[in-house]
Amino acid sequence: MENKKRTEIAELGEFGLIDLLTQNATSNNSSTLKGVGDDAAVIAADRYNAMVVTTDSLFEGIDFDLTYFPLKHLGYKAVTVGVSDVLAMNATPEQITISLGVSSKIPVEALQDFYEGIEFACKELGIDLVGGDTSASMTGLVINITTIGRAKRKAITYRSGAQFNDLICITGNLGAAYMGLHLLEREKRVLHDVEQPEPQFKGYEYLLQRYLKPRARKDIIDLLAEEKIVPTSMIDLSDGLGSEVLQICKASKCGARIYLDRIPIAKQTSALAEEMHIDPVVAALNGGSDYELMFTVPLAMQEQVMRLGVVDIVGHITRESTGAYLVTPDGSDIKIRAQGFKE
Amino acid sequence: MENKKRTEIAELGEFGLIDLLTQNATSNNSSTLKGVGDDAAVIAADRYNAMVVTTDSLFEGIDFDLTYFPLKHLGYKAVTVGVSDVLAMNATPEQITISLGVSSKIPVEALQDFYEGIEFACKELGIDLVGGDTSASMTGLVINITTIGRAKRKAITYRSGAQFNDLICITGNLGAAYMGLHLLEREKRVLHDVEQPEPQFKGYEYLLQRYLKPRARKDIIDLLAEEKIVPTSMIDLSDGLGSEVLQICKASKCGARIYLDRIPIAKQTSALAEEMHIDPVVAALNGGSDYELMFTVPLAMQEQVMRLGVVDIVGHITRESTGAYLVTPDGSDIKIRAQGFKE
Repeated sequence: MENKKRTEIAELGEFGLIDLLTQNATSNNSSTLKGVGDDAAVIAADRYNAMVVTTDSLFEGIDFDLTYFPLKHLGYKAVTVGVSDVLAMNATPEQITISLGVSSKIPVEALQDFYEGIEFACKELGIDLVGGDTSASMTGLVINITTIGRAKRKAITYRSGAQFNDLICITGNLGAAYMGLHLLEREKRVLHDVEQPEPQFKGYEYLLQRYLKPRARKDIIDLLAEEKIVPTSMIDLSDGLGSEVLQICKASKCGARIYLDRIPIAKQTSALAEEMHIDPVVAALNGGSDYELMFTVPLAMQEQVMRLGVVDIVGHITRESTGAYLVTPDGSDIKIRAQGFKE
Repeated sequence: MENKKRTEIAELGEFGLIDLLTQNATSNNSSTLKGVGDDAAVIAADRYNAMVVTTDSLFEGIDFDLTYFPLKHLGYKAVTVGVSDVLAMNATPEQITISLGVSSKIPVEALQDFYEGIEFACKELGIDLVGGDTSASMTGLVINITTIGRAKRKAITYRSGAQFNDLICITGNLGAAYMGLHLLEREKRVLHDVEQPEPQFKGYEYLLQRYLKPRARKDIIDLLAEEKIVPTSMIDLSDGLGSEVLQICKASKCGARIYLDRIPIAKQTSALAEEMHIDPVVAALNGGSDYELMFTVPLAMQEQVMRLGVVDIVGHITRESTGAYLVTPDGSDIKIRAQGFKE
């Protein structure tokens, strides 16, 4: 390799890397309605319906720490991670496959706990575990989740449909999972040499739950269908609000303005952020792992969307030439920047 | 964990483990036609057609060694691994997603080689790369492949359809990939402290190709369709003939007799096996990674199947009570045993 050009992944960032690697991906089959570049691929089922397929991986030591992550919760969360991408296409999740890489040292009972969590989530969401395998892994636990959903073709919501003046809506609140992770990491640090550790989580149980057992927002998809609202664009908030706004802007060729004081943040999130000297808005913007949904609707639907009672309007879509900005309460603008390759 | 029961994975074996973990998998959706337990899951597309979905993982250090595995070949092989399971359902592969876990130390150029191999295979097979992601991995390269195929519902071939007296057919020849791997490992061992190693592969190029760049047998599926042959059961030979025969017997509730002298083995396979003091039949039986197909047809189709010109009949299906046996040339019977959890 000595004489070859050597580019570090960090130079491109995760999104630049995927763009580069998949630039030659061709379309050989008429059944491929949408390939690389959205939360999920879209494949024709019949003339009116489509299936969406998405795949996600979780790596021990990067995406989770088994020191404090109960395996049952991890199984539940793996389903949420997979399902969330299907929901972001405005599709109904129906099947899931789980592929594991495990060290031979992990006992069967631990894997049973993990599968119990999967089954619990599947039951809650009405989906079926239809496949998967377990292979040996040299090192930590590796989880791969493939999720399959179904929707009417005309209901499928891409990242690319946001229009000038559309409202940017967010479900739930942001930053709680991020603060939950920080709390767990703090207690792990503090108690690492204590023989019978008793971590202090009192008052922050909600944050732990948001990080360890996040719930997929299938209720939102069902509600949108009931109210006959088809968003113009949608994405799930797995990487943090800032990064996801940029994805919508890139795919829809538009700009955006997000008002910082409108971002919904839970009380426990603010309280712990203050205690730990973290800006709660930073937690909400960069934290990720909330698995809430962000979507856009035409301005005319403002009242209809507000009546749902489960959504906050945090900003609106602007022209592409304007760029993507955060607006602070004092009225100044901060440009939203992409995050790099996470390690 | 001290007081909890602790069962080692090795006690159950890979197949026992999957059975245990997925025993509670329920079916909540009428679109789930077949869940866990075959080469792929089967999901209704419309009244007459179905999609099949399968997921596979490849781990560095377990499934491949980057010391001698060119990344372009690895990309090609990853597609073969995924597609092979779809073919084993008698379905046409149409889409694939690739999910990678990579160390940040791997240069972008190496990943581009990997994707070149993927694109080459996709073009050859007429399939589309429709998704995937790249995450950081703490250690080696982890590859996850999800493959989606399509078939008429009535053409889908399960492991469970083999009937008493059916013929057991095999495509191609077996054991070549296994010997290719042994050759690569031998040269690595011999040359590990040589500065400018020149490995000796002369006369064994075919074996290397079978291990490093195995071709998915899409030609067989196309040929079966042309000849209007729907096998009674089918499976791909990724784990070795012995193990796959047991899978067919378990799913179809039958026994089998495989005649050792009818197993097709290539000349290079026998030659290298002899040189390395390995029984070529052992290579064929336990080797795996050949990605050939094994299928069963009714006895009455013997002539029709032979006319295909690409298949060997290696045995026949017996009653469940008889069990699964290898028959040696001198007429003695050897019981086929399951392999354990691979490490």
